[in-house]
Amino acid sequence: MDDLCFSEYIPSKRIRITDEFWREKTALVRKEVIPYQYEALHDRIDGAEKSYCVENFIKASKIAEKIRRGEEVPVYPTDKWCYDENNSPAEAFHGWVFQDSDVYKWIEAVGFSLIVRPDAELEKKAKDLIRLICSAQLPDGYLDTLFIINDRSARFSNLKDWHELYCFGHLAEAAVSFYNATSDRALLDAACRFADLISDTFGPDKIKGYPGHEIAEMALVKLYDITKNEKYLQTAAFFIEERGKKPYYYDTVLGKETVYDNYHYNQAHRQPKFQYEAVGHAVRGVYLYSGMADIAKRCRDEELYDACLRLSDNIINKKMYITGGIGATVDGEAFSFDYDLPDDLAYSETCASIGLIFFLRRMLEISPDARLADAAERALYNTVLAGMALDGKSFFYVNPLEVLPEASEKDSRKRHIKAVRQKWFGCACCPPNLARLISSVSEYIFTENENTLFIHQYIGCSANTDNAEIDVASSYLTDGKLEIKIKPVRRFTLALRIPSWCKSYSFSGDCEIKDGYAYFNIEKGCCLKVSFELKTRLIKCSNKVRANTGRVAVTRGPFVYCLEETDNGKELQMLKISKTPGFLYENGFITADGFREKEDTSLYSEWTEGDYEKTRLKFIPYYRWANRGENEMSVYVRIE
Amino acid sequence: MDDLCFSEYIPSKRIRITDEFWREKTALVRKEVIPYQYEALHDRIDGAEKSYCVENFIKASKIAEKIRRGEEVPVYPTDKWCYDENNSPAEAFHGWVFQDSDVYKWIEAVGFSLIVRPDAELEKKAKDLIRLICSAQLPDGYLDTLFIINDRSARFSNLKDWHELYCFGHLAEAAVSFYNATSDRALLDAACRFADLISDTFGPDKIKGYPGHEIAEMALVKLYDITKNEKYLQTAAFFIEERGKKPYYYDTVLGKETVYDNYHYNQAHRQPKFQYEAVGHAVRGVYLYSGMADIAKRCRDEELYDACLRLSDNIINKKMYITGGIGATVDGEAFSFDYDLPDDLAYSETCASIGLIFFLRRMLEISPDARLADAAERALYNTVLAGMALDGKSFFYVNPLEVLPEASEKDSRKRHIKAVRQKWFGCACCPPNLARLISSVSEYIFTENENTLFIHQYIGCSANTDNAEIDVASSYLTDGKLEIKIKPVRRFTLALRIPSWCKSYSFSGDCEIKDGYAYFNIEKGCCLKVSFELKTRLIKCSNKVRANTGRVAVTRGPFVYCLEETDNGKELQMLKISKTPGFLYENGFITADGFREKEDTSLYSEWTEGDYEKTRLKFIPYYRWANRGENEMSVYVRIE
Repeated sequence: MDDLCFSEYIPSKRIRITDEFWREKTALVRKEVIPYQYEALHDRIDGAEKSYCVENFIKASKIAEKIRRGEEVPVYPTDKWCYDENNSPAEAFHGWVFQDSDVYKWIEAVGFSLIVRPDAELEKKAKDLIRLICSAQLPDGYLDTLFIINDRSARFSNLKDWHELYCFGHLAEAAVSFYNATSDRALLDAACRFADLISDTFGPDKIKGYPGHEIAEMALVKLYDITKNEKYLQTAAFFIEERGKKPYYYDTVLGKETVYDNYHYNQAHRQPKFQYEAVGHAVRGVYLYSGMADIAKRCRDEELYDACLRLSDNIINKKMYITGGIGATVDGEAFSFDYDLPDDLAYSETCASIGLIFFLRRMLEISPDARLADAAERALYNTVLAGMALDGKSFFYVNPLEVLPEASEKDSRKRHIKAVRQKWFGCACCPPNLARLISSVSEYIFTENENTLFIHQYIGCSANTDNAEIDVASSYLTDGKLEIKIKPVRRFTLALRIPSWCKSYSFSGDCEIKDGYAYFNIEKGCCLKVSFELKTRLIKCSNKVRANTGRVAVTRGPFVYCLEETDNGKELQMLKISKTPGFLYENGFITADGFREKEDTSLYSEWTEGDYEKTRLKFIPYYRWANRGENEMSVYVRIE
Repeated sequence: MDDLCFSEYIPSKRIRITDEFWREKTALVRKEVIPYQYEALHDRIDGAEKSYCVENFIKASKIAEKIRRGEEVPVYPTDKWCYDENNSPAEAFHGWVFQDSDVYKWIEAVGFSLIVRPDAELEKKAKDLIRLICSAQLPDGYLDTLFIINDRSARFSNLKDWHELYCFGHLAEAAVSFYNATSDRALLDAACRFADLISDTFGPDKIKGYPGHEIAEMALVKLYDITKNEKYLQTAAFFIEERGKKPYYYDTVLGKETVYDNYHYNQAHRQPKFQYEAVGHAVRGVYLYSGMADIAKRCRDEELYDACLRLSDNIINKKMYITGGIGATVDGEAFSFDYDLPDDLAYSETCASIGLIFFLRRMLEISPDARLADAAERALYNTVLAGMALDGKSFFYVNPLEVLPEASEKDSRKRHIKAVRQKWFGCACCPPNLARLISSVSEYIFTENENTLFIHQYIGCSANTDNAEIDVASSYLTDGKLEIKIKPVRRFTLALRIPSWCKSYSFSGDCEIKDGYAYFNIEKGCCLKVSFELKTRLIKCSNKVRANTGRVAVTRGPFVYCLEETDNGKELQMLKISKTPGFLYENGFITADGFREKEDTSLYSEWTEGDYEKTRLKFIPYYRWANRGENEMSVYVRIE
């Protein structure tokens, strides 16, 4: 691996976003999402499913206090996925087993948001919550409200299902984010105490368990990066090494009666270093692969890196929607088989695309490859952004590429496909995940090492890097142009990703092209002008994708476009786009020549050429769909 | 309704099938299916799921004997859908709650088969079984082994789920079939005793319940037709009238705790006379509609007939696959919404198409309409026949129109889609249903009244009708020709259905055309020569069917054709048929000019016209698919 071009991402506190598009998104998160979620965590939203998050920490804090005082505390069952007023006593834990993670994701988003824009009141709210969280921690460092409240002795008894190590992962990520923003160590110390306990509990000569829902792996690496405590890195590496070994840990612990036969779901069917096909729950998958890339980089683990390469290849080349969505099936919210990418049944969870971006950035830190950054761009500008309404007030879990509201209502196979975004979810993973990704989007722009600064994503910003002061003025999304002002600290190489959608580009300086990057030698202050030709394109899928034979999608730059009923009428399947569509781009929308087939209600009849009338089709960016009420949508359209 | 042209079907004992195609099918049922099922009922098939059928009747018979003697009998729970060695004591009932119906369907098929071809040994086997069945009947006429064995006091306590009235329906149908074949009254008397009990139990001033799974309605009408006992007709009419009234019977009986919210599934969401859209479990639906048509005819119930007309219209025009399959969704084995007919997710249960044929024949008895007979033909020659392997040894429950074996294996959404037929099922409704339909196929050929003889289906046969001795020599399936020899008993009108697939035809006599039938005045013995032009056709779906825009199916006469991988290679979606396909028909197969697109593994790329090479496509009749091992299949193919 020594010949690889390792680099580090540049943390958000060294970057100021100036890009109008992204400033608006981060402002939405700050003004809408974070305050709304704060209320949700406190169960103060009328009509929303209860979160119980803060309530659980208050209960846990009281229990922890009693334990510290040596008082007796009650025991309740820990046998459910979700606890509520109907199936649990009022004093017991409520919500999903992974409910704690919502508070942590909120704090993580707040940390990133405070870096973007300080806010004393918000910081105080977060610190109050952190104080509550810390007060719930047990003396030995254990911190998971389900087991603190219900049954201390049952902790770590079912790693497959009960999500303690998952909640720990989010705790650690929140702690790192908040510490980076404020230098406040309270939550970081709590996370380290829990990490110490975990490291003392699991390992080669200790309990040989590993998380059912991955994330602790990459979270432990974050703690390691900040504390340099080798123990954390070792525990993360152990979780990855141990996963999938036979006999299966879960079978050993849970006993023969409950032998588990769905190891693929948890990516525990074999050791990660021998995994080459992305399978199982998509979010868990990309969280694991992120951790694998982290370990591969820090431990120079070639076998693990090789697996990461093959997994990213498999996803990008065979299992990713054109929108950067992953997870083609609702059953297990999982990857389906190669090239199985049905549009109207997609799961394509918002969180999965977010996790994919995590994974791809880590891969770029090991070795720059424009295909990886391209896929991250695809996910970011399409599925991730589609996850949130334009007003920041409602969210999609599931991001289909084709929607018929009647089907969502009447066809139980499409129960997961919503035609309008939802306000909040009892199982609220996606909105806070969106909040943290959007607030930290600057961390996906650059990586650098001692002689090269890579720009992977084109977002207008000013950054203070080890190699240079850099100022990116971008109209990339609208006309493909960039002006990059550079004040070098030393001689270095600037590497710019050439987007895969761009067939023609120009730079105001000499460069060398390699692996999809243009490399410029920078010796003195300069301003690099970049122009990526931004054309509206007709894109086809591999003809191995059965859903889309004879159909095309329209894209422009990183954006995938779609048809909506509001602009094009009902029965979008009756539309065809012309082979010479005469695309017109205006205000973010695209129009194209097309045809509408006359409705034919006769169920079966002799084939004749359809009866078509000319029409002008209107496409909007996919991320903007479902912002004008419930209506049909389709990314793909038949071609003449 | 008085202006309608009522007619009666002609029972199979007055018809002798001479048609080679159908003689082969009935022989298969006689030689393969009936003997195999007999062994299955006795649990003598190695490797097959146990049926427990005969075992249950033996147990029930012993209990009944004890009851007659006034001895005490044990009680076991009656709280499951399926009982087996693991969840029930050895002495208790085993199998599905509706397990008795398998014995009855076998006897019904035997009855029809004995008419086709007497067989003393088979008749004896059936009589022995009937003796066993009768010995299990309780003194008051009750006859359902689940409740006889497990708990006499629990009978009729949960009509929604526990299928007693369903089993009764199959008992009555078996009794009528066996009586017609042998004049043996034993089972008929038993059925009548149970029908008496049911009629005394349910009614306007009695218990206001109705069957959860319909069939008793049409079965009671069969008993009425043979016994002329008005009580049976009234009970059938009551079940139909009461169904769907509010407050819902099931809610009243089962109590608030278990209030049922899925009345659509049982077609009990509103009174049948007000049902205009086919919804819910497709088999239950068409069984109910069959009973409705029976009652509408016998009671001259215009409101009910109107509902039947609208339901048959809805199915035929909006909810039926080109193969005559119905039930587009696996969830509830149910009808989906209008025009929602996905090929690769279809349920299209064999039994549902059989039930559709029942319903349509009854509608033809009320008023001849070629569209109804066309739909029955579609179901018969495609979905029904596809339900059984060519060797009669394996069966499909589910009849998809597109199959990718990899998807059936790896995609849980397609768990119900099997790429090869199965030997036998624990829940074995389809194979015996096929056996009884095929053995009685002659009963779908004709209906007649005092002045008209209708031929709805063209199957070579000799029939002794009230109007004439008639002899149909048919090469309808291969060249569309018929020779109909008629020896009239009196002056009458012969009405021949003109198949909807036929655009050009000739008759050797004068006729008048009405509602898709050609009417001939027959005054003396004659031989009518009929020629329906049999062309291979390209058929398209309504463009409201999203699955099939840009795709066509190939049909010839009543047969729908399909592509199989064995003939056309893998990745059938890469094929296109030419607009001028130059069809060639040979030995039942069809070849056509087409194109194969070069494989393109790049997941997303700039659209270009695909790279196609000419090829000759080979189509086989849909009913013959999956007889050469596991492979891809598709009814629809893209058109150039």
